[in-house]
Amino acid sequence: MTFKVTPWEVTGDVDYEKLIKEFGTQPLTDKILARLEKHTGELHYMIRRGIFISHRDLDWLLDEYEKGNKFFLYTGRGPSGHTHLGHLIPWILTKWLQDKFGAELYFQMTDDEKFLFSDKLTLKETNNFAYENALDLIALGFKPKLTKIIIDTECADTLYPLALSVAKRITFSVVRAVFGFQNETNVGQIFFTSMQAVPAFLPSVLAGKNIPCLIPHGIDQDPHFRITRDVLPRMGYYKPAALHNIFFPSLQQGNKMSASLPDTAIFTNDKPDEVKRKIWNALTGGRETIDQQRKLGGQPNLCSVFKYYYFLFETDDAELEKRRQACLTGKLLCGECKNELVARINKFLEKHQAGREAGRKNIGKFIFKK
Amino acid sequence: MTFKVTPWEVTGDVDYEKLIKEFGTQPLTDKILARLEKHTGELHYMIRRGIFISHRDLDWLLDEYEKGNKFFLYTGRGPSGHTHLGHLIPWILTKWLQDKFGAELYFQMTDDEKFLFSDKLTLKETNNFAYENALDLIALGFKPKLTKIIIDTECADTLYPLALSVAKRITFSVVRAVFGFQNETNVGQIFFTSMQAVPAFLPSVLAGKNIPCLIPHGIDQDPHFRITRDVLPRMGYYKPAALHNIFFPSLQQGNKMSASLPDTAIFTNDKPDEVKRKIWNALTGGRETIDQQRKLGGQPNLCSVFKYYYFLFETDDAELEKRRQACLTGKLLCGECKNELVARINKFLEKHQAGREAGRKNIGKFIFKK
Repeated sequence: MTFKVTPWEVTGDVDYEKLIKEFGTQPLTDKILARLEKHTGELHYMIRRGIFISHRDLDWLLDEYEKGNKFFLYTGRGPSGHTHLGHLIPWILTKWLQDKFGAELYFQMTDDEKFLFSDKLTLKETNNFAYENALDLIALGFKPKLTKIIIDTECADTLYPLALSVAKRITFSVVRAVFGFQNETNVGQIFFTSMQAVPAFLPSVLAGKNIPCLIPHGIDQDPHFRITRDVLPRMGYYKPAALHNIFFPSLQQGNKMSASLPDTAIFTNDKPDEVKRKIWNALTGGRETIDQQRKLGGQPNLCSVFKYYYFLFETDDAELEKRRQACLTGKLLCGECKNELVARINKFLEKHQAGREAGRKNIGKFIFKK
Repeated sequence: MTFKVTPWEVTGDVDYEKLIKEFGTQPLTDKILARLEKHTGELHYMIRRGIFISHRDLDWLLDEYEKGNKFFLYTGRGPSGHTHLGHLIPWILTKWLQDKFGAELYFQMTDDEKFLFSDKLTLKETNNFAYENALDLIALGFKPKLTKIIIDTECADTLYPLALSVAKRITFSVVRAVFGFQNETNVGQIFFTSMQAVPAFLPSVLAGKNIPCLIPHGIDQDPHFRITRDVLPRMGYYKPAALHNIFFPSLQQGNKMSASLPDTAIFTNDKPDEVKRKIWNALTGGRETIDQQRKLGGQPNLCSVFKYYYFLFETDDAELEKRRQACLTGKLLCGECKNELVARINKFLEKHQAGREAGRKNIGKFIFKK
C-alpha cells in the first residue's frame, strides 16, 4: 500500500476507492442521495461533487427519520493548532444538515487526545486551541440553541463515567488491531477512543431514550467510529451513522493540508498578504511558459488552486465547469486564476474573522454544560 | 511461588518477607521507628506489632517534616461492597497519623476501578458503595476540616486532566509488566492506574507548591504506587512515601478477608447475631477435646480468633500477651475467648454503626469539591 490513513497520520497518495474497501464503508450511491434529496430539497455541492464520498447506515438513519425519529449530529475537532480551511469541510456540511433537519449538534473538542498524542503540546495549549477553534465553528453560523461544544477536559464529570462503560467493552487487542498501537503506546492513548465514543450516545443518555446519531467526519476518523459502532449496541444504544469526507488538498504536493507545514494550508486567522503569498506559491497544473499554456491548456486535475475552487470557493457547478474549460483550453492563465482565488479567500476570511471576533462574546452560549 | 498478590487478587499463603523482597519495599527497622516515635510520642500498636510491615521513603518524609515541610496523607478504597474490618486497618493508622501530625487526608474512592474490574457491578452500584464506605471512614472520627473524600467519577473534572499527564508517561509495556495485563485487558483497566496516581500530587497542584505525601495502604496496592513513584518526579512532583500493612486474617483458612466470601469476614454493618455466628464458626487453634486443650494448650499462632485480638480488639500489649499465655497453657478455652471477642466486636460495631448513621448528615463536609 502506498498510502496510510489513521486518525493521527495521513501519508502518501490516498486511493479513496481502496480506502473505502479497506475500511468497509458504503459508497454514496445515486439511490441513497436521491432519498436524502427528498428531505433536503437539494444536495449540498460537497455531496454532489464527491467531497463526501461514503457513509455508514445513512439508509437506516433516513428510515428512522421517516418514522419521525429525529437524529442529532456529532462532529468534532482535535485542537492541536489553529483551524485551517480543511477543517471546515465537515463543519460546513454539518451546518447545512443542521439547517435542513433542525438537528442538534454535539461538537467534541478533544484537547485530551491532542495532548496525549503530541510530543510538544501541553494540555493548556490544546485547551486554548479548543477555544480558538470553537470561534471558527461559531463563525460558520451554527445556531447556539442547537449547538453544544464539548471540551473533553472540562466536561470530564459527564464524559468520563460514560467512557468507562465503553472502555470496559474494548480490549487492548482491539485498539492494537484498529489503530496499530504497540507496547510503547501510552495508556492514555489506549483509553482515548472511549472518550471519542461518548458524544455518539450522550444525547440518548440525557434524554433517557435512544436518539439516532449522524457523524459527518473526515474518513481518517473512521477507525474510532468502527469501534464506537461495535460497542454502542452492546450498551443498548444505536450504532451512529456517518458521512465521510475526503481530505482537503494541500497547496503543495500530497493529499492533505497539514497544520505542521503551514505553507500547505490557509489558516482561518491568516492575513490577506499571507493568503496571497501561499496561493502564489501553490502547486498548479500550469505549463512552463505562457505560450505553452495558451497552446496546450492547463491541467486542473493536477492543480491545487483549482481544487480550492472545487472544495470551497466555487459552489456553482456551472461556473466551476466554465473555469475548468477555460483552463483546459488555455484561455485562463494561472496568474489570473490565482488572483481571483486570493480575492475570494480573503473575502471569506474577512467575514469569517469578524464572525470569530463576534463569537468571543457568545462562546458561553455554545459550551456544553451538564 | 505459592502465593500471588496483585491489587485485584490475593491468593495462597502470603510470605511477607518474600513479598517485600519481590516488591522492593523497605522493612520498618528499629532505627526508623525510633525516629517516627520522636514525633508521635509513642508508636501505634499496629506498627509495634508488625501489622505495618514495610515502607518506602519514610526516612525522606521525616527529613522533610523536620525541615518544616509538612506532609499530607493519601489512602483510599475500591468500593466493591460493604466495608469489612480488614479495610479499617490502614484507615485507623491513617487517623492516628492525622491526629499526630495534623495532616490533611485525601481519601480516594475508586468507583471507576471497581466497575472496570468487575464482571457484575454497575457503575451505579460501585458509586453507591463509595458513599456507604465513606460512612465507615467518617465513623472512625476523621476531622472534616482535614479530610477530603474524592469519588473518582464525581471528581473527574479535576482528576481526569491530571491523570492525562500521568498516562502520557506510562506505556502498555509498563502496565503489562507491573500488573500482568494481557491483550484481553480492557482499555479502562489499562488507563486506570493513572487515576490512582492523582491524589498523590493533587494537593501540590492545588497549593501551587510541592507537598510531601504519605500513603498508608495494604501492600497489595504497591504496584500502583511503584508506577506513581516512577512518574511523579518526571512531572516535577515528589515521589510519595508509603507505609504498608499486611492483610487482615480471614475467619477461615487463608491470608485475607474477602468480601466475596462473607463468612470469612466481619462487615461493619453486621448485626450482633451474625457476628456471633461468624466468630463461633471461625477457625481456631483449639484442640479436639476440652481435656486435650487443658493438657496441651491452644495454638494462638494458628487461631483466627487470636488474630482478631492482635489486629484490632486488644490494643494493650500486656493484655494480649496474658491472653496468649492463658491460651498456650490451656487455661483459656476457645468458647470463653470467642464470647469475649464477640462482645468486643459488637461493642465496637454498635458505636461504629451509630457513627455511620450520624455521618449521613455530615458526609457533605467530607466530599472533595474543586
